[in-house]
Amino acid sequence: MTTQQLTQQIQKKKSFLCIGLDVDLNKIPQHLLQEEDPIFAFNKAIIDATHHLCVAYKPNTAFYEAYGLKGWKALEKTINYINKNHPEIFTIADAKRGDIGNTSSMYAKAFFEDLAFDSVTVAPYMGKDSVEPFLAFENKHTILLALTSNQGAFDFQTKMIDEKEVYKHVLETSKTWQNSENLMYVVGATKAEFLADIRQIIPNSFLLVPGVGAQGGNLQDVCKYGMNDHVGLLINSSRGIIYASNQDDFAQAAAKKAEALQQEMKVILK
Amino acid sequence: MTTQQLTQQIQKKKSFLCIGLDVDLNKIPQHLLQEEDPIFAFNKAIIDATHHLCVAYKPNTAFYEAYGLKGWKALEKTINYINKNHPEIFTIADAKRGDIGNTSSMYAKAFFEDLAFDSVTVAPYMGKDSVEPFLAFENKHTILLALTSNQGAFDFQTKMIDEKEVYKHVLETSKTWQNSENLMYVVGATKAEFLADIRQIIPNSFLLVPGVGAQGGNLQDVCKYGMNDHVGLLINSSRGIIYASNQDDFAQAAAKKAEALQQEMKVILK
Repeated sequence: MTTQQLTQQIQKKKSFLCIGLDVDLNKIPQHLLQEEDPIFAFNKAIIDATHHLCVAYKPNTAFYEAYGLKGWKALEKTINYINKNHPEIFTIADAKRGDIGNTSSMYAKAFFEDLAFDSVTVAPYMGKDSVEPFLAFENKHTILLALTSNQGAFDFQTKMIDEKEVYKHVLETSKTWQNSENLMYVVGATKAEFLADIRQIIPNSFLLVPGVGAQGGNLQDVCKYGMNDHVGLLINSSRGIIYASNQDDFAQAAAKKAEALQQEMKVILK
Repeated sequence: MTTQQLTQQIQKKKSFLCIGLDVDLNKIPQHLLQEEDPIFAFNKAIIDATHHLCVAYKPNTAFYEAYGLKGWKALEKTINYINKNHPEIFTIADAKRGDIGNTSSMYAKAFFEDLAFDSVTVAPYMGKDSVEPFLAFENKHTILLALTSNQGAFDFQTKMIDEKEVYKHVLETSKTWQNSENLMYVVGATKAEFLADIRQIIPNSFLLVPGVGAQGGNLQDVCKYGMNDHVGLLINSSRGIIYASNQDDFAQAAAKKAEALQQEMKVILK
């Protein structure tokens, strides 16, 4: 998918919401555990109830890997279900991968080819040759960790190199990499005040913004400082939406939470 | 496994060799492709031929994920085979994971519980709360990326924060984390000259050292600067060993390459 198509979808749906599909079997309605594939059953119900309200789905691979083969199978079924039934929706493998060149190529193959995601999140620590193999895929997007939503972001990301924070070096350096037009960036909603500075460096890139909801980030602040001419934001909410209820009505409850965010976004987009 | 047990094994086998099981179906002997599970068939033959020469096996998860469900199944069979037949061998999931707390917990569960690896490699970019969930597992080890073997290591890892390189901040900061005694570190063999400095900061920790062989690192230099009283090194070779031949004799050829390294190590250990 191109970023133009993503922007068109945002305008059409009046939404820049991304829903995180982080399925924890301890948190889903317990009647689903009787299903043959409880993880996929949960995701399918959430997708059926929310696809008109969001422009992206983001399964976090950790939650699937934790269930081994069963989990990986559920991930495969989930991405296939989205791609088949809602091909207009942008898909993000939240995998935070990154390794030496030949290994990153294998990860890129795994997520872009085998699982056919539109994008994957990647950690920058290993530098240029660990990220460029992902960037080589046409119409696929590499979402680089810049400033994350957690407290640990202050351990290294905000430390100063030559009077400039590490995450700004990541942003600036990444712009020089081959096929850098395929980059997007993770910036946590809990760090909204940093977004104005970030937009100075990468005015046009899409930002994936986690941390609204359970982690305490604020949608209005993120938009105030982070939105650009073509919106340029994907606001993720995971737990705040998908675990709105653990009863029979879980999918409807999730849709209500998603709609509340979408309605806020609709007003902002005016 | 405890680090004491690992050291005992090193002394017993006169080896601190780790073999990287990075299986690429394009590189393995083509007759194996007729097997029901070519990846596992390859690994099993390599393990059978080399287990007495090494103290650790390190499958890189990228190479398994690239083959989807089939690949994940082969990874599961491989770790189960090692744990069942060679429980004395230290196992490393080279996964380079790292995410916010609740997500890192899921990754830790995936690799330490579901797959029963002894250790997993983790990226430091997201800081303390992304790593501590891994450290919470008793007798399991978290191998933190410090200074990697690739060229991209110079993009961020060696940049200076307050007159000290980023990777040194990673080493020093990580020592303050809860259960930091469960940390080991990745230091690339291609950066052997940095090891003396690194040993000033972490004199007692085990180092996983990739980059000997295909990437050009030198065993003698690594030992000169990086070895401590209880050895404290795991030297990894992947492609240099497992792809020594792509003919019927591939396992024997791999064993020869492994033995050549083990013999060098035996001399060094004297």
